[in-house]
Amino acid sequence: MSTKPSNISVFKRRESEARSYCRGFDTVFTSASGSEMTDASGRSYVDFLAGCSSLNYGHNDPDMKAALIDHLQADGVAHGLDMHTDAKAAFLDAFCTRILAPRSMDHKVMFTGPTGANAVEAAMKIARKSTGRTNIVAFTNGFHGVTQGALAATGNGYHRGGAGTTLHGVTRMPYDGYMGDAFDTLDLLEAMLTDNSSGLDMPAAILLETVQGEGGLNTARPDWLKRVAQLARDHGILLIVDDIQAGCGRTGSFFSFDGLDIVPDIVTLAKSVSGFGLPMGLVLVRPDHDVMGPAEHNGTFRGNTHAFITARVAIEKFWADDTFRSDIERRSGIVEDGLKLIAAMVPGARLKGRGMMRGVDVGSGDLAGEICARAFQKGLIVETSGPDDEVVKILAPLTTPDATLRKGLNILADAARDVVGQSRIAAE
Amino acid sequence: MSTKPSNISVFKRRESEARSYCRGFDTVFTSASGSEMTDASGRSYVDFLAGCSSLNYGHNDPDMKAALIDHLQADGVAHGLDMHTDAKAAFLDAFCTRILAPRSMDHKVMFTGPTGANAVEAAMKIARKSTGRTNIVAFTNGFHGVTQGALAATGNGYHRGGAGTTLHGVTRMPYDGYMGDAFDTLDLLEAMLTDNSSGLDMPAAILLETVQGEGGLNTARPDWLKRVAQLARDHGILLIVDDIQAGCGRTGSFFSFDGLDIVPDIVTLAKSVSGFGLPMGLVLVRPDHDVMGPAEHNGTFRGNTHAFITARVAIEKFWADDTFRSDIERRSGIVEDGLKLIAAMVPGARLKGRGMMRGVDVGSGDLAGEICARAFQKGLIVETSGPDDEVVKILAPLTTPDATLRKGLNILADAARDVVGQSRIAAE
Amino acid sequence: MSTKPSNISVFKRRESEARSYCRGFDTVFTSASGSEMTDASGRSYVDFLAGCSSLNYGHNDPDMKAALIDHLQADGVAHGLDMHTDAKAAFLDAFCTRILAPRSMDHKVMFTGPTGANAVEAAMKIARKSTGRTNIVAFTNGFHGVTQGALAATGNGYHRGGAGTTLHGVTRMPYDGYMGDAFDTLDLLEAMLTDNSSGLDMPAAILLETVQGEGGLNTARPDWLKRVAQLARDHGILLIVDDIQAGCGRTGSFFSFDGLDIVPDIVTLAKSVSGFGLPMGLVLVRPDHDVMGPAEHNGTFRGNTHAFITARVAIEKFWADDTFRSDIERRSGIVEDGLKLIAAMVPGARLKGRGMMRGVDVGSGDLAGEICARAFQKGLIVETSGPDDEVVKILAPLTTPDATLRKGLNILADAARDVVGQSRIAAE
Amino acid sequence: MSTKPSNISVFKRRESEARSYCRGFDTVFTSASGSEMTDASGRSYVDFLAGCSSLNYGHNDPDMKAALIDHLQADGVAHGLDMHTDAKAAFLDAFCTRILAPRSMDHKVMFTGPTGANAVEAAMKIARKSTGRTNIVAFTNGFHGVTQGALAATGNGYHRGGAGTTLHGVTRMPYDGYMGDAFDTLDLLEAMLTDNSSGLDMPAAILLETVQGEGGLNTARPDWLKRVAQLARDHGILLIVDDIQAGCGRTGSFFSFDGLDIVPDIVTLAKSVSGFGLPMGLVLVRPDHDVMGPAEHNGTFRGNTHAFITARVAIEKFWADDTFRSDIERRSGIVEDGLKLIAAMVPGARLKGRGMMRGVDVGSGDLAGEICARAFQKGLIVETSGPDDEVVKILAPLTTPDATLRKGLNILADAARDVVGQSRIAAE
Repeated sequence: MSTKPSNISVFKRRESEARSYCRGFDTVFTSASGSEMTDASGRSYVDFLAGCSSLNYGHNDPDMKAALIDHLQADGVAHGLDMHTDAKAAFLDAFCTRILAPRSMDHKVMFTGPTGANAVEAAMKIARKSTGRTNIVAFTNGFHGVTQGALAATGNGYHRGGAGTTLHGVTRMPYDGYMGDAFDTLDLLEAMLTDNSSGLDMPAAILLETVQGEGGLNTARPDWLKRVAQLARDHGILLIVDDIQAGCGRTGSFFSFDGLDIVPDIVTLAKSVSGFGLPMGLVLVRPDHDVMGPAEHNGTFRGNTHAFITARVAIEKFWADDTFRSDIERRSGIVEDGLKLIAAMVPGARLKGRGMMRGVDVGSGDLAGEICARAFQKGLIVETSGPDDEVVKILAPLTTPDATLRKGLNILADAARDVVGQSRIAAE
Repeated sequence: MSTKPSNISVFKRRESEARSYCRGFDTVFTSASGSEMTDASGRSYVDFLAGCSSLNYGHNDPDMKAALIDHLQADGVAHGLDMHTDAKAAFLDAFCTRILAPRSMDHKVMFTGPTGANAVEAAMKIARKSTGRTNIVAFTNGFHGVTQGALAATGNGYHRGGAGTTLHGVTRMPYDGYMGDAFDTLDLLEAMLTDNSSGLDMPAAILLETVQGEGGLNTARPDWLKRVAQLARDHGILLIVDDIQAGCGRTGSFFSFDGLDIVPDIVTLAKSVSGFGLPMGLVLVRPDHDVMGPAEHNGTFRGNTHAFITARVAIEKFWADDTFRSDIERRSGIVEDGLKLIAAMVPGARLKGRGMMRGVDVGSGDLAGEICARAFQKGLIVETSGPDDEVVKILAPLTTPDATLRKGLNILADAARDVVGQSRIAAE
Repeated sequence: MSTKPSNISVFKRRESEARSYCRGFDTVFTSASGSEMTDASGRSYVDFLAGCSSLNYGHNDPDMKAALIDHLQADGVAHGLDMHTDAKAAFLDAFCTRILAPRSMDHKVMFTGPTGANAVEAAMKIARKSTGRTNIVAFTNGFHGVTQGALAATGNGYHRGGAGTTLHGVTRMPYDGYMGDAFDTLDLLEAMLTDNSSGLDMPAAILLETVQGEGGLNTARPDWLKRVAQLARDHGILLIVDDIQAGCGRTGSFFSFDGLDIVPDIVTLAKSVSGFGLPMGLVLVRPDHDVMGPAEHNGTFRGNTHAFITARVAIEKFWADDTFRSDIERRSGIVEDGLKLIAAMVPGARLKGRGMMRGVDVGSGDLAGEICARAFQKGLIVETSGPDDEVVKILAPLTTPDATLRKGLNILADAARDVVGQSRIAAE
Repeated sequence: MSTKPSNISVFKRRESEARSYCRGFDTVFTSASGSEMTDASGRSYVDFLAGCSSLNYGHNDPDMKAALIDHLQADGVAHGLDMHTDAKAAFLDAFCTRILAPRSMDHKVMFTGPTGANAVEAAMKIARKSTGRTNIVAFTNGFHGVTQGALAATGNGYHRGGAGTTLHGVTRMPYDGYMGDAFDTLDLLEAMLTDNSSGLDMPAAILLETVQGEGGLNTARPDWLKRVAQLARDHGILLIVDDIQAGCGRTGSFFSFDGLDIVPDIVTLAKSVSGFGLPMGLVLVRPDHDVMGPAEHNGTFRGNTHAFITARVAIEKFWADDTFRSDIERRSGIVEDGLKLIAAMVPGARLKGRGMMRGVDVGSGDLAGEICARAFQKGLIVETSGPDDEVVKILAPLTTPDATLRKGLNILADAARDVVGQSRIAAE
């Protein structure tokens, strides 16, 4: 590869202004392994962003890589539309055996276009077609993608504004905790569902994240989730859990709703489902609602066979027994401890999230941004989230060795200390 | 790989009813090379579908494969969000140097989610934001994807019905030739654009394919395309050419509008742009209209680095000089000749399309479907398109050796002869 | 009444800028009788506007006036919601006996809110509910009102812009003659209806005016209307004739579609249906499609009993035999002759409309406006219509005595002569 | 008048199923005076419905009647489009002098189509055009009409279902008290307005009734109204008070928001504004937002001159001093006392509303319906409201003599006693 770091100029000259992460992490990355990325100058960074939770198993997992190289060398099918391939069968078999069967989930697997937004669009279409209703309930601070159907369900005003037109078909309700502890926001949803004059058109679906990744790591309580599932059932509404960011082990188990005693009618998966960061999107749908006819929701890249290869390895390697789950639990504790240190530096800061999807709300987007910028200077890739980007969010690979995790947290703590210290000095 | 052909049952048991191509090509493919695919029983098929034009350079091109394996072995970044990577820089550099510069196209390159629908959604958003208008003109029989924004522009009633809700924001106009030769359909568009009381809200964009791939290989005349570009310019409307299926060499040159003396404000690319069938989507947009802010249109898989690797090789291998173009031209002639033979068998049949995007309208979806089914039995993968699936459509890899092309065309002719013969016997 | 002409200042001070006719006819009217209006200075004007065809029987018809005064003096119910009143029964009886029965129309009568727009909104709702489809086909240059549902069907860009948001649910098709004589615009509608991939969502209804009053007096040919009715029937689409401006005798018979061998599924009436210019709106709907439940489409003023009183008198006085019809025919001839004189003064001018709904397209909105302004100075109230206000439109009361009609036409001819003469001088 | 009671059959034969009030009050009314209506058999009924608050000054007020007969006899203009007439000037003058000036309201008066829905549609359009935003916040249980734009703001599911399509452009928020006393529903609105990621698109307007007439006489607290006005001001949102049912004295003063220290940007009026039950609609809009251009929101019946005549008399007769206000206050007390008696009969019943817009929630639509039906048998016209029709609602003319008021209340109490007694017996 003849690419030189000087090539960075081509981005400025020819890439659209829509580019974003590259602005904060202003270098040219050339290789990556496990929880670390290396740039063209040879510098290494601990990666606490992990492709926004698309790299839950780290970069270039050696077993997935080996399987993919084998597949390539054998001229395995790379692109198969939605035709049957051995790679797809093997993935499907592994996914059903290791993930769905143990949970008694009889869901059908729908391969959608390989983006999360596409999976969400498919889920919304399924719910509308299956129920004959058009309205979808989504929540404050939810993020579900930026294509027009999904964007209607996304709360972020900046992204909504990008539509250039009005967005329809979604009713917004307050997420758990949105009005503080004293008010259970589902009281409002229930009141409106049971009041024929509330103006809430009976929904086809309730669409939610159990932890709102982009929305600031807001975490719904198990009781709230159980109640929302019950409300859905009572009113013939489908429950769609968007597990694109929170799924694939991110919150501690494969699905973010594991152990909560709820069975969503529809689940969307993308991001880490391929294991290797390759584009792949899935919708799981209960057989009763598997109503899309042949190609009714179609798309060219539903058969990204490379992703099936790595996704199968990911399932067999990490989800065949409970080892990984206990690793995540232990690492979650490490992250939590690390974040507590940072929270202690910032008056009013609070911890957010659960599992390996955690952060600290430092109360100000500027402050959070400065901490992340300083961390990057010190060798850590980490990002913010939340309505005002006020949450420093850690999405380290779930496979991050404990030592690397501590290293990254130390960098973050140092960065926070620097920034907080400076702002104190500035204030004095 | 332990996958057995018996695995096919997992599809029936667990894959959604939305699966489609696998129904017509009911076997399990295991490998593919050039213009041929091989199934689990070892049988080979000539591939005249080529991932619906996603495999314009054939399956597993050896140079792309080698580059990808090198990248993998070097732990090259697999997934980089939209961060800078050497692979992305190299692709961008090659694309600008080999594709844009020679055409004096100063367009910015926007990496969208890696599906065609996502590129179309982004293009629609850009046009709406840039112009402050909301309406988009699209055409009869157009196909632009099935996410909600793109689906509004897609003509197909079956796909539209899948939305489960009404689709907004698009005005439909008749495509070139829709009302026969005597009526230039742009007379209507022009009349409505210049009549303040026509009810046509002034559009943000006119969105079109120069050859309608899914719509039945309807081909717009160069004069019609020039006139539509002029109308757009006269009214401050952006011209979006959706070159997802017709681009990347399919019609003979890299862009389907090459040589027509039009410069679209926005171009969408996907399908074959990665060269290897890997998911990748692009929007090219003139600098004036590069109005999406950082991450305003975002998505996790904008940085499918593997696709950048193969896409760069594709550009350097096939588009550095005119060799490939003349190969395509010769092969187009072979396809045309082959289709004429078939057309001669079916009263009223007509040839459609241009370049290597050609087919024969046999006047009936049943007949076309039977021909394709019989061809598959004989070892050829080929599909129909058109409102009633009445067009047998050939989308062979552009790299198909002449002999293989003739072999496939012979199979198709045999299949057509069988089916037409049978129906004659049945009719007697 | 203590009102003085000086009161005109209150309009400028306190009435909204949305006021319009008062700008062109800048005086204060105080009384009106037959085809003449009188202003506060005692000056009389011949009225060729007739409340935009709301005063087909002239101002203050003496029989209607007497009946209304009787009703008032007897403390007849003035406002009765949609309760039964004797006045409503008498109207309904007369309407069914004199209007519907002779035409073998078994339509139900629905009293909507007392505006034309409300009747159109009701008609659209009925069609959508009855068919389960949402799309409505409307035509270029159609005008159906400015509330949001009706406005979506209205072609005028100025009015559409007033919505302040995008308008949905209507597909626009070219009206008869829109593309000249050589192209039957229904060929396009038929092609799109029979092409599943055209992008035309199967409509609930086709909504049209037989003569487009605001659109410039475009007149559909009988064969075109018959064909549109047949197309509707063939596809299970309801045919809605908006007879708000063209009905109640304006084109020569009670309904504008009389004698055309078509039976609309739904007819909207307003404007002249009360006979006296009082607010009243009606929907006629075939029993099969009478699907609105009790109060499902409601509104306070559905029972404007004063309007029922005058409407009954209008029917009994004008529609009990054929006298009025032959009067209208004769007067239509007079209007046509008068307009021919004016057309002869303006190169390229053409006559438009039919019956007593006629005008002359003088090719320029400025010219038409100047003619009307000059006519007003000379004692004639007359207005323009059309996309560019280029048609001088005559909507004289159908009861206008022949002499008054000729007087008005003479004034108009004088005005035209003045204006055309001046512009010739200016050009020289 | 030759109409006989037997004429009632014409309704069943030919009137649409959409008819409603006539079903509950199944007789033919022939005359009405003050607070009483008389049917064809000569029977009199006390009217506690008053045209749903369209007859606040009673039936056939003698002064208005005399003025209207004078106008008719003098051939005053009956229908004047939106041209200047002396009658309109006199109304406008009286309205500005007696109603707006004392309140220092500098609003412009816009004459819309003569229905409440039309006024609401105009108000929504003004707000959208003036702010450049499209979203409108409306409330649970709000009722604003059934044309498409207004219907989107109406909460009632039965009416919404009548649209036959999805309704757009309105975000629903809980009205004051919707979640009980412990939760101020504006906390939610404020939280969503100040959270850029809430998914609430910044509204053009907040549209509300101060007392929800159709919604069950829910009454917003003064503090809540003041806070909503402040929130609107803080965010550049227009405040629209829909005073169609609650205005014109119904709650004790001319506007329902009098004395609350709020000045809406836009006010809609209809129903009783003509004084006589004649169709008339108004929008009051602050000069800054008077953005509709000439005829941009138009309609034929904006100049219902008869209504201007009676409306002027109403203003001069009732609003020139405080007499009427104190009458209303006294009568409100009488109504309240009467309703308390009824509430005492039904366990759990609660009083609702304020001023002369009061009712009793008896907890069940069946029970409320039976009470009203029994009352009608006993000579009282009274209706229910609320999501389940569970509120017996009294909308007596504000001019009802105290004795008649007590008579009606006694009938209602008797009816309630009968029904409650029967249901007790049935229960035993």
